[in-house]
Amino acid sequence: MKVLMDLCVVPIGVGVSVSEYIAACQRVLKEASLKHEMHMYGTNIEGEWDEVMAAVKKCHEVIHKMGAPRISSTIKLGTRTDRNQTMEDKIRSVQQKLA
Amino acid sequence: MKVLMDLCVVPIGVGVSVSEYIAACQRVLKEASLKHEMHMYGTNIEGEWDEVMAAVKKCHEVIHKMGAPRISSTIKLGTRTDRNQTMEDKIRSVQQKLA
Amino acid sequence: MKVLMDLCVVPIGVGVSVSEYIAACQRVLKEASLKHEMHMYGTNIEGEWDEVMAAVKKCHEVIHKMGAPRISSTIKLGTRTDRNQTMEDKIRSVQQKLA
Amino acid sequence: MKVLMDLCVVPIGVGVSVSEYIAACQRVLKEASLKHEMHMYGTNIEGEWDEVMAAVKKCHEVIHKMGAPRISSTIKLGTRTDRNQTMEDKIRSVQQKLA
Repeated sequence: MKVLMDLCVVPIGVGVSVSEYIAACQRVLKEASLKHEMHMYGTNIEGEWDEVMAAVKKCHEVIHKMGAPRISSTIKLGTRTDRNQTMEDKIRSVQQKLA
Repeated sequence: MKVLMDLCVVPIGVGVSVSEYIAACQRVLKEASLKHEMHMYGTNIEGEWDEVMAAVKKCHEVIHKMGAPRISSTIKLGTRTDRNQTMEDKIRSVQQKLA
Repeated sequence: MKVLMDLCVVPIGVGVSVSEYIAACQRVLKEASLKHEMHMYGTNIEGEWDEVMAAVKKCHEVIHKMGAPRISSTIKLGTRTDRNQTMEDKIRSVQQKLA
Repeated sequence: MKVLMDLCVVPIGVGVSVSEYIAACQRVLKEASLKHEMHMYGTNIEGEWDEVMAAVKKCHEVIHKMGAPRISSTIKLGTRTDRNQTMEDKIRSVQQKLA
């Protein structure tokens, strides 16, 4: 089962600046060779369910190891059986309606 | 790694009434023997990361099998290393501040 | 326009324990006389769009005034035009499918 | 109070393809002259709280008028008092850690 995800990880208890933790999570996604694209309030990820979920778990593990005692993530998760849809397909179908 | 989750599954393409799909997901959680509590806009779940995530995957699989071609879930996901915290602990600590 | 909301406010930069901030937000909802029900990972709210949104804004303002320099909230927001649905209706329609 | 938002609107009861509704919401944001950037699973928005929230309400109203009987949106909402932060600042601070 393929999944399109939007992942937003919020480390708690490490002060107001959290960018180094977000950067560590980006490295996890890159090392997992998962297609991903960061935006201002999260990261879009595309891949097989198990691989994407393994990366999310590793993000939590790595950020805890860096010293964050608490993490609250918000995840949006899309699956579909009617057709195979990539990140690019999804954006394109809206842009075609806007043209 | 233990996780506290809030899971909200939205089936798309099956009309405006989605309660039978939500009910199917409740059955998945029950069969998985996961501690869970439904509220008006999702379900709180407590358990080991892998077991909770396996149940989320099964919810998507079961709802697709029921005929929903598309699902968009929103998940909140909390982990912490400083202490073990249950669903009840979390609510109690707010209620104590309100008393 | 009526709205059913699930509100989860996460204060950042105030350490690992955030329950006093959540409690302050509960007080805002109570003072606004909005129907609301706290759960383990957020608070369900029912009311008119403008009143509910005014309360969300006040939660952010109050929590900042308490000293939290940064807040990241996750909100789920449901509106419908086909029928009037309360918090209780929504839970009941799932429970009927489970019975 | 300035806000950085990630808005994801899901129309329910209009079939599996929802891109025309998302496009309508993009037009609302453009007409409101709000800084915004669509990604694969939502749209980042930056602006004053009241203006951004007015646009979110208008998105719901417009999508209902187009015929969608039900909408479930997921919103992430960030405010901070320690400093003024733009969408670009937020991405840049992560990218600097990755460099």
